[in-house]
Amino acid sequence: MNDSVDSQGPPATADGSSPFGNWIGQRTLITGGLGFIGSNLAIRLSQLGARVTIIDSLIPQYGGNLFNLNGHEDAVHINLSDIRDRYSLEALLKGKDVIFNLAGQTSHLDSMHDPETDLAINGTAQLSLLEICRRVNPEARIVFASTRQIYGKPQYLPVDEAHPIEPVDVNGINKLSAELYHRLYADVYGLSTRILRLTNTIGPRMRIRDARQTFVGIWLRQLLASEPIEVWGGEQLRDFNDVEDVVDALLMAASLDELASTPYNLGSHERLSLRELAELMIRLHGSGEIRLMSFPAERKKIDIGDYYSCYDRFQRDAGWQPSRSLEATLERTLAYYRQHQSHYL
Amino acid sequence: MNDSVDSQGPPATADGSSPFGNWIGQRTLITGGLGFIGSNLAIRLSQLGARVTIIDSLIPQYGGNLFNLNGHEDAVHINLSDIRDRYSLEALLKGKDVIFNLAGQTSHLDSMHDPETDLAINGTAQLSLLEICRRVNPEARIVFASTRQIYGKPQYLPVDEAHPIEPVDVNGINKLSAELYHRLYADVYGLSTRILRLTNTIGPRMRIRDARQTFVGIWLRQLLASEPIEVWGGEQLRDFNDVEDVVDALLMAASLDELASTPYNLGSHERLSLRELAELMIRLHGSGEIRLMSFPAERKKIDIGDYYSCYDRFQRDAGWQPSRSLEATLERTLAYYRQHQSHYL
Repeated sequence: MNDSVDSQGPPATADGSSPFGNWIGQRTLITGGLGFIGSNLAIRLSQLGARVTIIDSLIPQYGGNLFNLNGHEDAVHINLSDIRDRYSLEALLKGKDVIFNLAGQTSHLDSMHDPETDLAINGTAQLSLLEICRRVNPEARIVFASTRQIYGKPQYLPVDEAHPIEPVDVNGINKLSAELYHRLYADVYGLSTRILRLTNTIGPRMRIRDARQTFVGIWLRQLLASEPIEVWGGEQLRDFNDVEDVVDALLMAASLDELASTPYNLGSHERLSLRELAELMIRLHGSGEIRLMSFPAERKKIDIGDYYSCYDRFQRDAGWQPSRSLEATLERTLAYYRQHQSHYL
Repeated sequence: MNDSVDSQGPPATADGSSPFGNWIGQRTLITGGLGFIGSNLAIRLSQLGARVTIIDSLIPQYGGNLFNLNGHEDAVHINLSDIRDRYSLEALLKGKDVIFNLAGQTSHLDSMHDPETDLAINGTAQLSLLEICRRVNPEARIVFASTRQIYGKPQYLPVDEAHPIEPVDVNGINKLSAELYHRLYADVYGLSTRILRLTNTIGPRMRIRDARQTFVGIWLRQLLASEPIEVWGGEQLRDFNDVEDVVDALLMAASLDELASTPYNLGSHERLSLRELAELMIRLHGSGEIRLMSFPAERKKIDIGDYYSCYDRFQRDAGWQPSRSLEATLERTLAYYRQHQSHYL
């Protein structure tokens, strides 16, 4: 199967070059590769000629979904395991040219309800991964997917990389640690690590069962089920990246020889309020309604208000910029879930 | 035994008040209480009339030493256990008024050689402690001992709390996480946490077997053994606090009702180079010599150059300032180890 509703970016040319590097024959590993971003990356990499191995734990609360690689199973090697299992991790890290380190617990609320699991996966397993790479594969390039969540509540907008780091939940603290481990292993041991701080990412293959990955996921489910979209607050501004733009960024971060080991923001110049986003989704879908909700106390404590990123630094150093419009992204995503939503409920 | 060479600060007055709060009958817990700072704190608290319980793992590479409470065993309850053991920890946290959270792995080099153990003790166990407090003792006051190490290489001097956080070793990253957990549990759950960032602390009961706690420890051992003091580099500036001044600070941080949950620096206006410190120690001891050493590559990577703190904020908010001169501190410390060094080798 090759999804007609997918937009996989430019194909490789005959000599294997692309705006995102030459991937022919590259041995790549994607942790969390059955998840939203990981699976889109896996498909693109296989189309660019890379050899792709995936690790995924399929923990039900996370983003991993075997259907995400439906039709692509022959193009990738799927290894079901948990990155907390260090012996399988070591065997899989060995001999890889590029490691896309995307595995993680992403839910902010879950990180508060079960902080120790969040730490085990987002902190301890990340440190193990780097320790193993240092020992058995110090030449590998490692791209780590971090999150805007580490900044906490913005003190100014747009948020650039110099913004103070004040995470407002356990997830943000542990993702920060993982970032710092990646930087430290570059500085002290010379590992080739790169860090991207992702903002809200949307597109086909995202989790829509609940709001654990992004609130847009559950909005899609509500919209397709002809239920009101539950909008918490409504006036908070956000920026959104198409998952294919994020895949572009991951490929560029991996393929450029000269790139800092300090973190780079992704982001978008398309910013809108939650209410505007919901209205846009309803317009594109052709029907739907909004139910405005006020924050429960527990959630308000970790809400951050308006947020959008400045991504000038990554644009300057890597030449990246988002190229898909939010409207086109939502159209494509809605089309994907109209066709496949039963696999995501 | 009451050490004549100790200086325990002002005694409590008849009504129990002191410049450091009224501690009579207060139920206190000190994690790492057999260590250098913990044991000095335990002795002071018992003299002020507090009920003192100690947790210590006696891991040989850390600072715990049963001799540190020699002569004071009847005044405190010593519970030998590891803060990674969450069931014993929960039982010991219950019902305490004040928790001095000092347990930790302190060696920067050990944190690089065995980063996962550093994370288990300095990160995971700290998160467990806070989770347990939230559940079974949310009213307790919690004072956490952090470290200047989280700042990394100073970008300006003196280093104040607004200085960028760029830890240069695994220990610094994990101590930062622990700080952030303490702040988060204050902000989200209303726990009463306070954080002090300690600089170099010296005094009786410090580890002198090696440089795991501070380089001054091994210098003392070398001086008393009539061996040359090995000075790495030599021109780096440092500030030093007497352990009794640090105990003052811990008591103040615990007893003031109004104090921010954001971290406070300790520090000193007495700053000198490593070479000057070694020369001062030799003069006070009456003999000795210096052997200047150049950094091995591994160590140079995590050396931070000059460092000294600005402690204006804690002085303003808590009224604390160091009151013991470095010379008096070194005199007292040398006298202690001349008498007791066999228990520390």
